[in-house]
Order: sequence, then C-alpha cells, then structure tokens
Amino acid sequence: MSSLQIGLLLFPKVTQLDLTGPLQVFSRIPGATVHLVGKTLAAVSSDTVLSLPPTVSFADCPQLDVICVPGGAGADDMINDEAMLAFLRQQAPAARYVTSVCTGALVLAAAGLLRGYRATTHWSTIDDLAAFGAIPECTRVCIDRNRITGGGVTAGIDFALTLAALLADRTTAQAIQLMLEYNPAPPFNAGSPDTAPEEVVSLLRARMQSARQPRSEAIARAAARLSAQTETAA
Amino acid sequence: MSSLQIGLLLFPKVTQLDLTGPLQVFSRIPGATVHLVGKTLAAVSSDTVLSLPPTVSFADCPQLDVICVPGGAGADDMINDEAMLAFLRQQAPAARYVTSVCTGALVLAAAGLLRGYRATTHWSTIDDLAAFGAIPECTRVCIDRNRITGGGVTAGIDFALTLAALLADRTTAQAIQLMLEYNPAPPFNAGSPDTAPEEVVSLLRARMQSARQPRSEAIARAAARLSAQTETAA
Repeated sequence: MSSLQIGLLLFPKVTQLDLTGPLQVFSRIPGATVHLVGKTLAAVSSDTVLSLPPTVSFADCPQLDVICVPGGAGADDMINDEAMLAFLRQQAPAARYVTSVCTGALVLAAAGLLRGYRATTHWSTIDDLAAFGAIPECTRVCIDRNRITGGGVTAGIDFALTLAALLADRTTAQAIQLMLEYNPAPPFNAGSPDTAPEEVVSLLRARMQSARQPRSEAIARAAARLSAQTETAA
Repeated sequence: MSSLQIGLLLFPKVTQLDLTGPLQVFSRIPGATVHLVGKTLAAVSSDTVLSLPPTVSFADCPQLDVICVPGGAGADDMINDEAMLAFLRQQAPAARYVTSVCTGALVLAAAGLLRGYRATTHWSTIDDLAAFGAIPECTRVCIDRNRITGGGVTAGIDFALTLAALLADRTTAQAIQLMLEYNPAPPFNAGSPDTAPEEVVSLLRARMQSARQPRSEAIARAAARLSAQTETAA
C-alpha cells in the first residue's frame, strides 16, 4: 500500500473527543487512509452516548504508519490488557510515529513504548508516566524522536495539526486548520489548573478522587508486569 | 421528565467534529440526557470513516430542551429535506434553546427558525444566511434570544461551553473546560481567513469552489420553498 495508514485505537469507555478531534484532522491529510482499530469489529462504548464502530480488527489491521491511542476512563483498563499491549508492541517498531492523546500515553507507556522518552498526558495524571520509565513533561504536545504525545482531550486537535505538518507540510496543516475554523475562543480561561479559578480546580480534584485509587492500583500492576517482562527479555 | 433533554441531530455526511465536540461538553452537564437523533435508528455516515449510530429516531424523540444541528456537506441536502425541516419546526416552539454549529445554521434557517435572528456559521458560507431572512454575524458564537449559533466546526466547543454556563452555571462550565483541558494552543495561526496566510486562504477557496454551485442551487431552492410556505401561512 502506497498511502499513509493511520490507525486510531478504540476501546470501551474511550473519551470520544480524544479520538474524534484527531480523526477530523487526519481525515483531511491527502493520501491518508484512516482506520478505527478495535479488538474485534463490535462497536465499543465511549464515555458518552456515542457508540463507536471499528473499521478493522486487530487481526486484520495493516501495518500502520501512525499509531494513535486516545485516552479516557477505559485507558485504565487497557494498561493491563494483554491483547491491546501486544498489538501496540507488534505495530510500533515499523511505524513512523507512535502517538497518543490524553491518558492514551499511559497505554503506550504500559506497553513499554515510552521508556526513556519525554511524554505528556492529561494534567491530572502526568506524574504517573514515570512509573513506566517515561519522562513526564507538562506541555500540550510533546515530541521526542518519533513519539508524539498530546495533553488532555482537546489537546488532540493541537497534536493532530502538529503531526499533519510533519506528515504532509505546513501549508496542508494550515489549510486543515482553516477548514475546521480552528481559531479557538474559549468563553472562560479555565482550561488548565494554572489558569482555572481555585474553586474549580478543587471541585474537579475532589470529583476525580474516587477514580484515583483504582487507577493507582492498575498502574502499579501494569508497571510491575512491564518490569518483569523486561527482566525476562534481558 | 425532569432532566434536561439535549438532542444533537444526525444526518448523512455530517462533519463529525461539529457534533462530537458539543457532545463531549453536553455529556458532562449534570442532569443532562443527550440524544443522538436520526431520521431512523440506522447508523449514518459522517465525513470521515466514523459511522454514527443514532440513539433515538425522529418519531420516538421526546420534546427537547436543547436542539443542536451540526453542519457538514450533508447539511446542503438537509436544507431541502422535508422530514428534517418538519422535525425541527415541530420541536422548536417548546425548546429552551434552538442551536447549531457550522453549516447546521443553514438547516435551522431553511426551517424558518432564524428569520429575523442574528446568526453565525462557517466563515465560507456566512453570507448565505441572508437568503433565509437571518442576519449574518461574523462571530464565533452568536446569541440572539434563544437562538445560539456557532461558527465552523471547532467553534462548536466554544459554543457548547457557552451554552453549558447558561444551562447550568459558570463554575460547572469551567469545570468541564478544565476536565477537557481546553487550553488551546494551535501550532499555527491559520484558523480564520483574517489570520491565515493568503496562499492558504486561496488554496482552500479554490478547493471549495466545486461545492459552491450545488450549494447555491440548494439554497435557492430552499429559500424559495420557505418563502412560498410563509406566504401560504400568511
């Protein structure tokens, strides 16, 4: 196949905008074929009422030039999902870019694909990358060699435009930005814990607290398994 | 039903990010029930490989508090689609907010729902709103009484956060923004024809030229029909 093969990974409880933002950008890159890659072809649930039908299964997926793992609550399950991790490990060596949005970075990291790489993820979980040997960097889009990671959810649009310029050229990426009228004007300045009102940050941290314990346990298990696998391989 | 009923309209060739951006925001509003409303329950194609399964059909849709029509190439068909226009006309009178993203405004306008209202849409088609008696306003989010219209594609996120503050409160909207890490940092300043390099604007205008003639014809037909209906009603 001569065209550019781009694969976005699907899994239950994915945050759909982590995926649909980059999907919109990638779909406008000339010559790109975009795949929605599921474990099987069964539609997966997202974090909203939108159900997402894959276009290809792990088994039938061609070698990808770009692998992109979105995040969401379901990413906490995927970091211990052997089928997902095996798929990523199998695809990564021949891919031009191995990428993620939001907590998709934890999944790449759990597959051992961010060890020694600088990477970003959702602001609330950035420190967790270190458990897998990645080097957390609080930035919206982080490029380290061929690993490109985006911050939380909407950072996927900035990430995808950055990658579009690398895959095609700057003018192509700018034309996509103009077509999508991506001239953002948020009504509030609350998009980062550094700028949001203190009460909003506190409110959200309190609300996320209940997810913290299971995530910490899942990360500890995933990190231990990755470490054991690495020792076996060495 | 005591909860807030929010309906996003689905139709073939919808620009999926017009819908999935607001969907992500609306889904986090406490007490909101979000519906993906299709003519039938059959999944509809988007402008990307993502296929979108409705959650409810026109016939079974409850009275909506918020109606939101996304845009895309398929909106050019919807402005002459009697079933779509009838659904919008039937729902609008009892809705708290009648809204759109991108060229979804043309569909609201073709249903006669923007006559005498200020409204916005994608930058490339803003003048077309006047054919339906709307007052075009080049802005990212336009509020006129209970009609709220967003500009092209990604403006849907700014629109939805604005509406979230009206439906809930400012703190709730800010918490959603922080959760989505909506702290945009576009890699280029090309999101508006006013800021994009001249060559990028020219490139895109040339590429969109082929869609211009069919759109103009569709708008002329829709505007004539709306005008005839209004005279009959008068």
